[in-house]
Amino acid sequence: MRAAVFDGPGEIGIEEVQTPEVEAPEEAIVRVTHTAVCGSDLWFYRGESDREPGSRVGHEPMGVVESVGADVRSVEPGDRVLAPFSVSCGECEFCRKGLHTSCVNGDSWKGAQAEYVHVTNADGTLVRVPDRHADDESTLEALLPLTDVMGTGHHAALSAGVEAGDTAVVVGDGAVGLCAVLAARRLGAERIIAMGHHEDRLDIAESFGATETVTERGEQAVERAQELTYGGANHVLECVGAASAMNTAIDICRPGGTVGYVGVPYGVDESGLDVFSLFSDNITLQGGVAPVRAYAEDLMADVLGGTLDPSPVFTKTVDLDGVPEGYRAMDERDAVKVLVRP
Amino acid sequence: MRAAVFDGPGEIGIEEVQTPEVEAPEEAIVRVTHTAVCGSDLWFYRGESDREPGSRVGHEPMGVVESVGADVRSVEPGDRVLAPFSVSCGECEFCRKGLHTSCVNGDSWKGAQAEYVHVTNADGTLVRVPDRHADDESTLEALLPLTDVMGTGHHAALSAGVEAGDTAVVVGDGAVGLCAVLAARRLGAERIIAMGHHEDRLDIAESFGATETVTERGEQAVERAQELTYGGANHVLECVGAASAMNTAIDICRPGGTVGYVGVPYGVDESGLDVFSLFSDNITLQGGVAPVRAYAEDLMADVLGGTLDPSPVFTKTVDLDGVPEGYRAMDERDAVKVLVRP
Repeated sequence: MRAAVFDGPGEIGIEEVQTPEVEAPEEAIVRVTHTAVCGSDLWFYRGESDREPGSRVGHEPMGVVESVGADVRSVEPGDRVLAPFSVSCGECEFCRKGLHTSCVNGDSWKGAQAEYVHVTNADGTLVRVPDRHADDESTLEALLPLTDVMGTGHHAALSAGVEAGDTAVVVGDGAVGLCAVLAARRLGAERIIAMGHHEDRLDIAESFGATETVTERGEQAVERAQELTYGGANHVLECVGAASAMNTAIDICRPGGTVGYVGVPYGVDESGLDVFSLFSDNITLQGGVAPVRAYAEDLMADVLGGTLDPSPVFTKTVDLDGVPEGYRAMDERDAVKVLVRP
Repeated sequence: MRAAVFDGPGEIGIEEVQTPEVEAPEEAIVRVTHTAVCGSDLWFYRGESDREPGSRVGHEPMGVVESVGADVRSVEPGDRVLAPFSVSCGECEFCRKGLHTSCVNGDSWKGAQAEYVHVTNADGTLVRVPDRHADDESTLEALLPLTDVMGTGHHAALSAGVEAGDTAVVVGDGAVGLCAVLAARRLGAERIIAMGHHEDRLDIAESFGATETVTERGEQAVERAQELTYGGANHVLECVGAASAMNTAIDICRPGGTVGYVGVPYGVDESGLDVFSLFSDNITLQGGVAPVRAYAEDLMADVLGGTLDPSPVFTKTVDLDGVPEGYRAMDERDAVKVLVRP
């Protein structure tokens, strides 16, 4: 089969690789019909994080089950499925409490930007899409973000403690930040202030439910958010991960409030997290890598019910040969998020 | 009157200063009968934090009201009172929600290690001790830690989410750590694992309710705590503040658990907080400077009822002239906490 491979910073290739097969009774093979390029993929693409050259890439698979092992009970060949960005068992302490990202039997994908993907634990990982929606393209595009960014935005909103009537500030206008706006609206936030620097993305944020936007940078952005919230918000959703964004989130959080953070920490070692502000203002830092598997059923119900549609985060679509161009477009911010149809 | 003054690192003097007087209608003057030296005082004493030489010191006053301004309603001269380590108004948004340390009208003490202390907001700050207990020395010594360390230990336990039946780990065997053990026991924790390096202090921890102790250092301490908790505790109470202790707390926290931290952050800028572990394990960091004013009535009820006695943290008592010796004793760990009777 053909698959996307990381050849080094700035270089993604499409190569012929061995087609995966079921090797153990709990496994499945999924023919990938939809996947995506993730903002977190840009880190190795830019050489900002280490990754082995020659390794396969992609972690947001949706497709049709091709084959299953003897012990698989939840899906069968022909079923439409999606899967979160990590593989989980569904049975350990952490899966049971909804923290699938800490699964003691967890695994990562061996490249979902490919024609087929090897699922090492099918029952614990795959989420079945009901047959009646299995071939509706617009529904599938609205479901695809549940593999990562929509679940991550939801984790930010839950971690920040957003409830009906609240005022929430979302830091970051990438796909996760935009999904965090949707998630906050879904949880009933009355005011949602989206902070970012790209007009086209903030337009999406407004269409997703942001009631105000802040486009200033640095200290001015903090001042503007403070002004809009009369001294800071009780719920801040940090959706970037860079130390500067984390500290912005802390700065605009009201004393006693909560920063829900889901951006993969970046540069926090060098420039430091403002722990002293956290301490003196009793700000809670809650969140982490999002257990999107835990949220899939709830969010899917809303997508299928027509009340949730994160698909506008996909501003560009490519086929498998277009994956290198997809990385380039996201790297150069020509696209918010790239949909891949292998 | 006479008061303790910081003359520079390692140097505390007792000087004649002006006796304070009520200057505004909401103020009071308290004759200090009991106060203490705090672990946080050691930072300027050791030259590890900046403080103006010539400044007065001490922030844990208990005594008898000497005089009050015209608007003071909650106390009158002759009343026995104690006060938390910071002055609050009791009326602003943050005081109303129990976050008195973020009081918008807040103030700090101008030296409680003195014969008298000037209270700039009496109604919002002073906690009256019922008359029938006002002269019982052992009760007063049990109440004095409510001015700081007992409320701070309680804040650690609440921030870490300790509830009945839980297993909690307390990092640190200073006065705050010991009070955190008491607080966790008071909240019903079934197992309390105290971590520290001083046998005499861990003996106090056991008398306070610790069910196990960990005396190893560094990586060994983490391993031992992990072993005792079968992979990490859901509730970790960080009572030191040094970056190494914060990171130990993170390391022994179970994925999805909470670190309740109350130690004033120290050295976190240089050696860094392990944000990546927080992120990958979805560990919540909750806490900060303790709003001990919010906890005073509840904790006092237990002290007066005979079910709470943190006074064993005072292992040495001095008079005002003995304050310099009190700092020395705490600095050299000859005393856990020093009681001062001016």
